[in-house]
Amino acid sequence: MEISERLKALRLEMKREKIDIYIVPSSDYHQSEYVGEYFKCREFITGFTGSAGTAVITDEKAGLWTDGRYFLQAEAELAGSGITLYKCGEPGIPDVISFLENELKTGGIIGFDGKTSGITDGKTWENIAQKRNGSIRYDADLIGRIWKERPKLPKEKAFFLEEKYSGESTASKLERVRKEMRDASANMHILSSLDDIAWLLNIRGNDIAYCPLVLSYVILYEDRVELFADQTKFSGELIKLLRSDGIELYPYESIYDKIQTLSRDREIMLDPGRINYTLYRSIPENVKIIELENPEILMKSRKNDIEVSNIRQAHLKDSVAHTKFMYWLKNAAAHSEGPEITEETQQAYVTESSASEKLESLRAKQQGYLGPSFEPISAFGAHGAIVHYSATAKSNATLAKGKMLLTDTGGHYMEGSTDITRTVALGEIALREKEDFTLVTRAMLRLMNAVFLHGCSGANLDCIAREVFWKEKVNFNHGTGHGVGYLMNVHEPPITFRWREGKSPAPVLEKNMVITDEPGIYIEGSHGIRIENELLVCEDEENEYGQFMHFEPLTYVPIDLDAIIPERMTEEERRMLNAYHRKVYETVSPYLSPEEKVWLKDCTRPV
Amino acid sequence: MEISERLKALRLEMKREKIDIYIVPSSDYHQSEYVGEYFKCREFITGFTGSAGTAVITDEKAGLWTDGRYFLQAEAELAGSGITLYKCGEPGIPDVISFLENELKTGGIIGFDGKTSGITDGKTWENIAQKRNGSIRYDADLIGRIWKERPKLPKEKAFFLEEKYSGESTASKLERVRKEMRDASANMHILSSLDDIAWLLNIRGNDIAYCPLVLSYVILYEDRVELFADQTKFSGELIKLLRSDGIELYPYESIYDKIQTLSRDREIMLDPGRINYTLYRSIPENVKIIELENPEILMKSRKNDIEVSNIRQAHLKDSVAHTKFMYWLKNAAAHSEGPEITEETQQAYVTESSASEKLESLRAKQQGYLGPSFEPISAFGAHGAIVHYSATAKSNATLAKGKMLLTDTGGHYMEGSTDITRTVALGEIALREKEDFTLVTRAMLRLMNAVFLHGCSGANLDCIAREVFWKEKVNFNHGTGHGVGYLMNVHEPPITFRWREGKSPAPVLEKNMVITDEPGIYIEGSHGIRIENELLVCEDEENEYGQFMHFEPLTYVPIDLDAIIPERMTEEERRMLNAYHRKVYETVSPYLSPEEKVWLKDCTRPV
Repeated sequence: MEISERLKALRLEMKREKIDIYIVPSSDYHQSEYVGEYFKCREFITGFTGSAGTAVITDEKAGLWTDGRYFLQAEAELAGSGITLYKCGEPGIPDVISFLENELKTGGIIGFDGKTSGITDGKTWENIAQKRNGSIRYDADLIGRIWKERPKLPKEKAFFLEEKYSGESTASKLERVRKEMRDASANMHILSSLDDIAWLLNIRGNDIAYCPLVLSYVILYEDRVELFADQTKFSGELIKLLRSDGIELYPYESIYDKIQTLSRDREIMLDPGRINYTLYRSIPENVKIIELENPEILMKSRKNDIEVSNIRQAHLKDSVAHTKFMYWLKNAAAHSEGPEITEETQQAYVTESSASEKLESLRAKQQGYLGPSFEPISAFGAHGAIVHYSATAKSNATLAKGKMLLTDTGGHYMEGSTDITRTVALGEIALREKEDFTLVTRAMLRLMNAVFLHGCSGANLDCIAREVFWKEKVNFNHGTGHGVGYLMNVHEPPITFRWREGKSPAPVLEKNMVITDEPGIYIEGSHGIRIENELLVCEDEENEYGQFMHFEPLTYVPIDLDAIIPERMTEEERRMLNAYHRKVYETVSPYLSPEEKVWLKDCTRPV
Repeated sequence: MEISERLKALRLEMKREKIDIYIVPSSDYHQSEYVGEYFKCREFITGFTGSAGTAVITDEKAGLWTDGRYFLQAEAELAGSGITLYKCGEPGIPDVISFLENELKTGGIIGFDGKTSGITDGKTWENIAQKRNGSIRYDADLIGRIWKERPKLPKEKAFFLEEKYSGESTASKLERVRKEMRDASANMHILSSLDDIAWLLNIRGNDIAYCPLVLSYVILYEDRVELFADQTKFSGELIKLLRSDGIELYPYESIYDKIQTLSRDREIMLDPGRINYTLYRSIPENVKIIELENPEILMKSRKNDIEVSNIRQAHLKDSVAHTKFMYWLKNAAAHSEGPEITEETQQAYVTESSASEKLESLRAKQQGYLGPSFEPISAFGAHGAIVHYSATAKSNATLAKGKMLLTDTGGHYMEGSTDITRTVALGEIALREKEDFTLVTRAMLRLMNAVFLHGCSGANLDCIAREVFWKEKVNFNHGTGHGVGYLMNVHEPPITFRWREGKSPAPVLEKNMVITDEPGIYIEGSHGIRIENELLVCEDEENEYGQFMHFEPLTYVPIDLDAIIPERMTEEERRMLNAYHRKVYETVSPYLSPEEKVWLKDCTRPV
């Protein structure tokens, strides 16, 4: 079915239900960033495959809102669909709210599936409707009605994360969260965020591609836990293990009925940012709601010492695999000298996809490797400028000398999850590309080497990376870094390096948090460069001025000196680069072959 | 009367009124940062003369809470008073709230003068009392009862700021604020913040030392304005002028009665951070309150083009005066070679106070100069480490070679207010002092030369200055900068350079805002260095990445090269210093004598 036919079918359903504007968010029932196939309604109705975006359909108009990471990709994927791209945050572009306010007629009805919408969004849309003396319909999953080939919900097995990996027993975590409940005078805590649940119960699964999580809800009481999930995913042994911590299993969607029948003496602690609108609306009116950020967010963000020690191991394996990949890419892989490759000769060459497969195969050789931690990006030449590029059969480029390959990939290991980006020059690249590469390297190194007082947030420190960009009057349209989960979501709140703040100040960077450092530069139609290390937040000297902090790099993979112009770096920046490369060699070389070792020595030479 | 006797008298009054804990804030009735003599109750009861602090007195205990700027000063001034110093923000030190919670007995009464207390404080103290089944008394000005020699309220004349200075008519400002009222669905707007009132009505006065403001309240209606102030301060001509904008005068304190009798159809827009607790409590319960930050705060912070052009003029005059002062200090003033100066010879030498007077006399020669914009700081040698040092007859040090003089001073001109700090070496100073001086210079220059995207706040940019400090594991216990008013408060909200944020993210730096850049280093018992320029926020290039911004220095006074170690600066930092000094010479030299000019040429030589 073409997009235009899908829109036609949706508009028919809208007419039938008297819905004037229908909103299709990107989320599943758990406000997840990435969602399983069953939940890709927004992709179904627009054809846009990026992870973030909102579609809004009226009788005559259809629009897609997405952010800077996806502008180029969305433009390409929406071409010819009749759907207008609205670039969020660009000057003069209306946001979803103003669009709705403009389009909704008096007495009009806004429809959406409340299970896939956040509370704030649901309330906002309700307000807009009320202002027009209109109303909302949030029980209508119209996409579900027209999506004939909709995939089924997954049936993947759940598994338990032993304490040698998690570093803390379920009982201990439950007790810590229950203390937060008591402090908030709550006797009940509803969780629908899959990562918070996975952390709290030390369970993992495989329900969403790249996210080892289990589709589930939890109600935590003072004395027991109700876990709502597909029971067939749990082995008898696991059920027994959970039961020993007071955790009982109930059918996945039965939480909605459960909530509707709550008695009025309940005082529910919940996170309005992590509960869907329908679940929220299911709570009886006379039940007290205590709105607080889920305490699990901060707890899991501060890794414990066992997790930290595991994470270092995971990154060592990952760095070895990635360094071997670079060796292969620079030395063993065949690259043509120019763009002309015939179909016959192509097989001998490397493509974006085959490079990605090579990297995956090297990761797979590492012990405890479970799979990629997100959809791998392998972007050659101009594709590098598409921030979340993913090679398709059609776009899959053959690597050739004279351009760069950007890979942004990561792995899940039992010892943690990784996320690393390297951009590698194939042969001699243009001066402009080297200048840009040097700029990105400087920004990454400066942030990695920051020293700061405890109390600083990523909003305070982001400028340390960006200032070198801003001096050149350039910028990148994404955060400089994000928290990383332990065998979990690779984008983990609450910490980020992001100068633009939300309504509350950004959270403080605490000891044992893990964050990425990934500035980039993207020149449409030409090249894209991003260099990403993961950093561990560490305590430094404490003196009369307070507790100083610094970062320990977790990633040890060379930064391609073939693309560096040392004269464009300050003396201090060169010192940072050389110190990092010395550590790369020390850390990784024991795991390499003699040839690889010789190559790495040269790759990490002082400049 | 000794402090101990005052405390005794206060405790007697507390007993009489059955008050268990009495709180004495530093404020006047208008939440002013600096207050007139009449309002210095906290100073009266503690002896601590700093601008910020809260005193809390119980039957047995007496404590003073103040911040990092005042730790050394408070320690000195409280010595022997029996009052305990609580250093706000230091690890392990209880804040006022925890102190009250610990000290208040069940059923106890907390007393304070609600007119000198903010709403948040008043409510917090009310809550603490309620938790103990106690209560508050906020109508009791106990200090007023025991303060026999209390100064009278001032009778200084008010004056009108013509449009060639203000850049915008009162009528235009009133209309802009009324639009904000309409947008907030308010039909009344109460103002008690003196700077907001002065800006809105284009009036100035002289009721608080260094703050050219008029003690007053305002009620702004849709069609008229009620100004509550001592009517004897206003000339017949000024009253006529005000009346032409619909502004009528009423007695200063009559606003409290007025508020108590408001009719219930009133919808009052007010700023809970800028209204005193008693005024707030005077509002009848059935009147609707719309709590919003005063729109005047942002409006006056964004200077108009006429103000900016005036401000540049004011700073030119100020820079000329200050440069002449530096010439005098370095060349004409006599400094002894060592610390021994006899009483007979002392008169030939310069002291902290006489240096300050010299600077004041040079400012006074400038056209349109009205007086100092805050209490001048002139701190020699170890006194420089006391951030808000003020020379007393007892402490007044004689300047001698081998140490530095720190002056932090400023002036009010009809064309605006200035704030500048320079630290100057007298003769040859120690290596450590030069190292510190160089560090402070680097931080100041880096921030002054920052380039950033529109949307950045001072919380984003503060690290650009602090990072050089933090790398050396040192810090300074104050903000790196603050907004500056136009012939008004020298500390003007909302903008600051301050990495630690409050409950909401720091405000964005907008075009035509004025902010100081003043890092410092303070080594107790040895030396203090602070270097402060004022900066104008300017638009830079706008391109596909957004609107870039930069700062234009307003202050053009040399940075003492005798205290600089060029080798400790990066090449880029030396470039910044040289570019600044070139501009200092170009800007200031036309106003100097031939000797001064020759000296300035050398003072601003490239390093």
